[in-house]
Amino acid sequence: MSSPNETHSPPNLPRTAEDESAIRQISRYEDFSTVDWIEDTERERARIRYLYTTWDRSWRSLCWRIYEAGQTWWVVLLVGLLIGVNAAIISIATEWLSDIKLGYCTTGWWLNEKFCCWENWNIHGSCPDWQPWSAVVGLSRENLLFNWIVYVGFAGLFAVSCAFLVQEYAPFSAGSGIAEIKSILSGFIIKGFLGGWTLLIKSVGLALAVSSGLSIGKEGPSVHVACCIGNVVSRPFSKFRYNRAKQREILSAASAAGVAVAFASPIGGVLFSLEELSSQFPLKTLWRSFFCALIATVSLQAFNPFRTGKLVMFQASYDKDWHFFEVIFYILLGIFGGVYGALVIKFNVRVAAFRKKYLKAHPIGEVAVLTVSTAIVCYLNIFLRNDMSEIMSYLLRECKDGDYSGLCRVDYVPRMTWLLLMATVVRSVFTVFSYGTRVPCGIFVPSMAIGATFGRMLGILVQSLHRMRPHALLFSGCPTDGPCIEPAIYAFLGAGAALGGVTKMTVSLVVIMFELTGALNYIVPTMITVMVTKVVGDLFGTGGIADQYIKLYGLPFLDKEEHLFNVPVSNIMIQEPTVLTAHGMRLHSIEALLRGTTYKGFPIVDSLAEMHIYGFITRAELQYAIDKAKQQHGVQEDAQCFFQIHNLPSSMSNLADYTYSSPSSIDFGLWVNQSPLTVDPRQSSETVLEIFKKLGPRMVLVEHEGRLLGLVTRKDILRALHYSPTASRQDYVPLEDTPPQNVNLAPHPQVDVELDSFHGSPSI
Amino acid sequence: MSSPNETHSPPNLPRTAEDESAIRQISRYEDFSTVDWIEDTERERARIRYLYTTWDRSWRSLCWRIYEAGQTWWVVLLVGLLIGVNAAIISIATEWLSDIKLGYCTTGWWLNEKFCCWENWNIHGSCPDWQPWSAVVGLSRENLLFNWIVYVGFAGLFAVSCAFLVQEYAPFSAGSGIAEIKSILSGFIIKGFLGGWTLLIKSVGLALAVSSGLSIGKEGPSVHVACCIGNVVSRPFSKFRYNRAKQREILSAASAAGVAVAFASPIGGVLFSLEELSSQFPLKTLWRSFFCALIATVSLQAFNPFRTGKLVMFQASYDKDWHFFEVIFYILLGIFGGVYGALVIKFNVRVAAFRKKYLKAHPIGEVAVLTVSTAIVCYLNIFLRNDMSEIMSYLLRECKDGDYSGLCRVDYVPRMTWLLLMATVVRSVFTVFSYGTRVPCGIFVPSMAIGATFGRMLGILVQSLHRMRPHALLFSGCPTDGPCIEPAIYAFLGAGAALGGVTKMTVSLVVIMFELTGALNYIVPTMITVMVTKVVGDLFGTGGIADQYIKLYGLPFLDKEEHLFNVPVSNIMIQEPTVLTAHGMRLHSIEALLRGTTYKGFPIVDSLAEMHIYGFITRAELQYAIDKAKQQHGVQEDAQCFFQIHNLPSSMSNLADYTYSSPSSIDFGLWVNQSPLTVDPRQSSETVLEIFKKLGPRMVLVEHEGRLLGLVTRKDILRALHYSPTASRQDYVPLEDTPPQNVNLAPHPQVDVELDSFHGSPSI
Repeated sequence: MSSPNETHSPPNLPRTAEDESAIRQISRYEDFSTVDWIEDTERERARIRYLYTTWDRSWRSLCWRIYEAGQTWWVVLLVGLLIGVNAAIISIATEWLSDIKLGYCTTGWWLNEKFCCWENWNIHGSCPDWQPWSAVVGLSRENLLFNWIVYVGFAGLFAVSCAFLVQEYAPFSAGSGIAEIKSILSGFIIKGFLGGWTLLIKSVGLALAVSSGLSIGKEGPSVHVACCIGNVVSRPFSKFRYNRAKQREILSAASAAGVAVAFASPIGGVLFSLEELSSQFPLKTLWRSFFCALIATVSLQAFNPFRTGKLVMFQASYDKDWHFFEVIFYILLGIFGGVYGALVIKFNVRVAAFRKKYLKAHPIGEVAVLTVSTAIVCYLNIFLRNDMSEIMSYLLRECKDGDYSGLCRVDYVPRMTWLLLMATVVRSVFTVFSYGTRVPCGIFVPSMAIGATFGRMLGILVQSLHRMRPHALLFSGCPTDGPCIEPAIYAFLGAGAALGGVTKMTVSLVVIMFELTGALNYIVPTMITVMVTKVVGDLFGTGGIADQYIKLYGLPFLDKEEHLFNVPVSNIMIQEPTVLTAHGMRLHSIEALLRGTTYKGFPIVDSLAEMHIYGFITRAELQYAIDKAKQQHGVQEDAQCFFQIHNLPSSMSNLADYTYSSPSSIDFGLWVNQSPLTVDPRQSSETVLEIFKKLGPRMVLVEHEGRLLGLVTRKDILRALHYSPTASRQDYVPLEDTPPQNVNLAPHPQVDVELDSFHGSPSI
Repeated sequence: MSSPNETHSPPNLPRTAEDESAIRQISRYEDFSTVDWIEDTERERARIRYLYTTWDRSWRSLCWRIYEAGQTWWVVLLVGLLIGVNAAIISIATEWLSDIKLGYCTTGWWLNEKFCCWENWNIHGSCPDWQPWSAVVGLSRENLLFNWIVYVGFAGLFAVSCAFLVQEYAPFSAGSGIAEIKSILSGFIIKGFLGGWTLLIKSVGLALAVSSGLSIGKEGPSVHVACCIGNVVSRPFSKFRYNRAKQREILSAASAAGVAVAFASPIGGVLFSLEELSSQFPLKTLWRSFFCALIATVSLQAFNPFRTGKLVMFQASYDKDWHFFEVIFYILLGIFGGVYGALVIKFNVRVAAFRKKYLKAHPIGEVAVLTVSTAIVCYLNIFLRNDMSEIMSYLLRECKDGDYSGLCRVDYVPRMTWLLLMATVVRSVFTVFSYGTRVPCGIFVPSMAIGATFGRMLGILVQSLHRMRPHALLFSGCPTDGPCIEPAIYAFLGAGAALGGVTKMTVSLVVIMFELTGALNYIVPTMITVMVTKVVGDLFGTGGIADQYIKLYGLPFLDKEEHLFNVPVSNIMIQEPTVLTAHGMRLHSIEALLRGTTYKGFPIVDSLAEMHIYGFITRAELQYAIDKAKQQHGVQEDAQCFFQIHNLPSSMSNLADYTYSSPSSIDFGLWVNQSPLTVDPRQSSETVLEIFKKLGPRMVLVEHEGRLLGLVTRKDILRALHYSPTASRQDYVPLEDTPPQNVNLAPHPQVDVELDSFHGSPSI
């Protein structure tokens, strides 16, 4: 054994680009499931070090250096631009499709109602160029029944064609995708989930699905689409193709931009990515996300799809001050948000389980039934009939800026209360059924719309209470004359509360809400409401809806919460793993081992007796090195195998010439990770979990007094989290409180989407 | 040696409260410098586990459980409340002191001008109850010279008494404190920095210093004061007193609240704590910071010190849209911000070094000279004469809301340009000299004021350019009639750019800027400006001013940037550390070792021949255990020492009865950390740095094939960062670019403030 202080070999030797490429190719097909952040980061450092050695003072080298230094920023710039452009196209398509359900522009079929009638309204306040379908076929313009039938027909057509596209071409583009993105950003790989086909179909499908009138939003899918763009754009760059950890940084930035364009909320997007999505969020990623969100927002605004010139979606300049007594009602709204979130999550997950069990074969039929029934039922209520964003802009508008359907009329209070309550309930029910169908769908905007109807209702009630009893003790803080309660603000807070209830966001939610509306005076009420929502939601004990879907789909994900295992790591490790010895193994026995096991990597020890850890080699690299040695050097079956570099070249630059094999021996030294992380078997499982979460290795070896005793992978930790009676999301769970919350779910993380290698393989 | 798989002893055994308390007491006096996050977290888990075993189903137990579960939240609530109250008191005191320089309220000396004259203005627009000092002594009300002398006198008096208080009673309360807070939050301990005296003197001194008219702000000190409150409030709670890592969570929340009350920007505060201050920021801390900032803001608002009922400091409802061509000017403002930041940081650090060298003995004289010269020079410029916040509110106000001193007059353009330029330059110079004097002082508000004067100047110039050449190509995006350029917005962006230049913030800055003003339409311009500022600032290669002060003071701090060492950890570790053997050592030899070394802890090995790691024990715990054993059991000098528990009690509840010593032997097993983190000597230093940054242990042992080879502490890493020619903040520094940026600074981190044990002790 050599003393490690003498050799000082660099931890990860640089390899040739072809080697890298080939290994990654193999790795992909061998279904590596987890990203090894440490290894990837080391690889990146080795790459930079290697680049330095190749650089000189020539112009060509200088250009290359500038390109290298800015590579990430160019990619982020391009990603941001494309996300903005894509969002603009989806917006325009959605508007056109929504309008085509109602009628047809005679001056150009490609124009939606707004552009068809741009400065073209006649004196009756209608626009002659825009023909309802009844007029197109020769019936009266006001033939409501015919128009209604056409409307339902178009809605069904859109939804069905969307479901068909999704089903046939890109199954991954169904749903919101947030759960999978969280899993991917935490370092797992889901093959094809961020591919070009998914991008195309999800973009098209999103426009179709939203314009079909289903009770779904476009925010979640927008994040997924943005991440697809991030993946597709970054793939041609070698820095990201070979380095999944680096690629995750681009995806974090892209997801921020996705939220930014969906809500027109660049800062909210960055915070959403930080608080909700990303597991690793160094400062550098923060700045890149900021930049990406900025670029995406600017490019969306340059397209100006809404022709308003404004980014703020529901501009509301509430200039009234709030009163301290109103805190009671803010708390009420917060409680509503928490309860709404808990109920919707619970029932939606049940519906999803039911769908998985019984409706799996009929996705298109399900979507068709849902769309048609939504269209029919929602026609009966003015707060359900129109587009959700439109309704919200009315609900969040103060009465002084204009009435909508009697919302501000004193004599309409009972009628409006009833309509708003019904809208709240009916849309909640449809959302429970719609979110998770096999079309691209988000739950953010429906939740906000539901919260806004409830909030406006509460506001109207409080307002009329004040009108009836202006001198009640409760209202002593009100001015003696003039209005005191503004229902629009209650709608605004209700929208925030409901969104907070489903997502369990806090800081990012407050920022999104006030980027959406500009209601800066109301930041403290918003914070109070969101805080109460969070507390009430936590009482029900469920995470956000994305976390629930992660559990439902069995996606591998180490969440950010703290857990208590109460056992040392020796209890959860794999004992006596299959190992290779550093010296004296013959090639045929290694090949037999590869054939006979499915392990994704092997610890290397000096001898089976001593079990001193020498290093770690992954299956993919071992296989590649064998194949290459066979091809290039004609290595024989009984060649001796070494896992230690014997004659390391003195300088790294001539490493490519380094011959590591001969017909009678193979030296795998170049492929060995010489310094895998190790822990003591008495180390607490909690600390090992921290190591996985914060440092992100693929596995950790367990070693005591120099002997290898076992190994732990991220999956072992996940399994322990599922099995352990005391592993819990809560800090203070008494020991007797044994059943974990997910007893109805598979204890072993399994997936029904095709995940890279997450089929319960015993190791790595 | 026992197999670790058989014993399964819990990693950290619970100890009695007295033991904990006593050891912490020793530790404090033994000057532990670094927080061991892993150990503290383990300790907390052990505490919870132990609590479970003591709980039953009685009422008393239930109450205790509820108290335990909510303890952190109660503490955060209390901290937030007190921060809000303290901020309100400081605000009121500052206003009163500022006004007392000008005159005196005849109806009550404790009233400032605003309250004195509340609804009491006479028909001439003046207030008879408020007497200028000239009138008080019987001279004419308009005797400007006399008033001016009194004004300067008061200013000098305030500043001198502030400097005296600081010098005599709490030297730590000088300066902004942000640099030290960053170091503390990253896990180092600065004794007395967050104490009660510092809190009191800094609060009083802040009011005095700000009202003296020095070119300083109150934001940085406000964060320091908030952290003092967090420390003082959390200390009585055992959960935090014995657990520095938990205490850091409270401090993170408190610092968020400190920014929140200073800027009236709760979300900005949370993000500032996240982006700028805290090294460890788990989700839980995010929510607590959010809560703490909310409570502090609400309690400040309840006091309503400004009697405006608003939180927004410089309300500005810019309803104009911005034009794409203006991006050129936004970039110009960004460049200004970057250059301003770089220059101010550079010269301020030089002044600070000069002060350290030559002015250390005369802090009060320095402050007096500075205050008087500031008062004299600034009187000559209307944009320097008044309070900075007041000036900013004029500069950020659109012309349609009223003029100030001719800012909006077309014929005043040259005059205003000149005044604004002079104000920019003069205030910059005074800021360079003032920030860092021995009074509480921040740099945020002065920077914003400087940026606002420059921005307004640029805005006025662009506006008059548009007026002269309305049809120039540049202005083709403008409306054909009416105004196009709004100088107030340039002032707003300039303020953000200058603040960004000094602090290098991005996301939190944007949020703070738009929480300060409510200028939501301008979020994209703000982002562009801040991004340019950041890029330009990074070109100059310096971190924010807090980072520069960290370097200047030699504070220990592992920043969040990436570094390249290019060497394995064996190059930076301490080789062959002093060890203890697990069996057979005699007490007198251990005591000799303790006397003969200053190491703060010792690895325990099975034998000097094998060097198998058995565990780690800190000096404080070793000393405490020896003292206790001597007292209680009369242990003799030649007693045998064991570091391994021989007869572990079967249940944890009777652990208190476990006798671990006899007159002839001591068992230190209870005090041994049985699972210290270990790495291979070939592990890259970068990964070890990541371990320190993300997991936060106090030291990491270096082990190869079971043999202990060395140990690494956070200080060794810091030292390596200072010495290593390639350790750099930049990703892509060529190898030949050797000199580190801080060549003029001590290569060995040393401190001139009294730091716990950071006097270059060789180990831990």
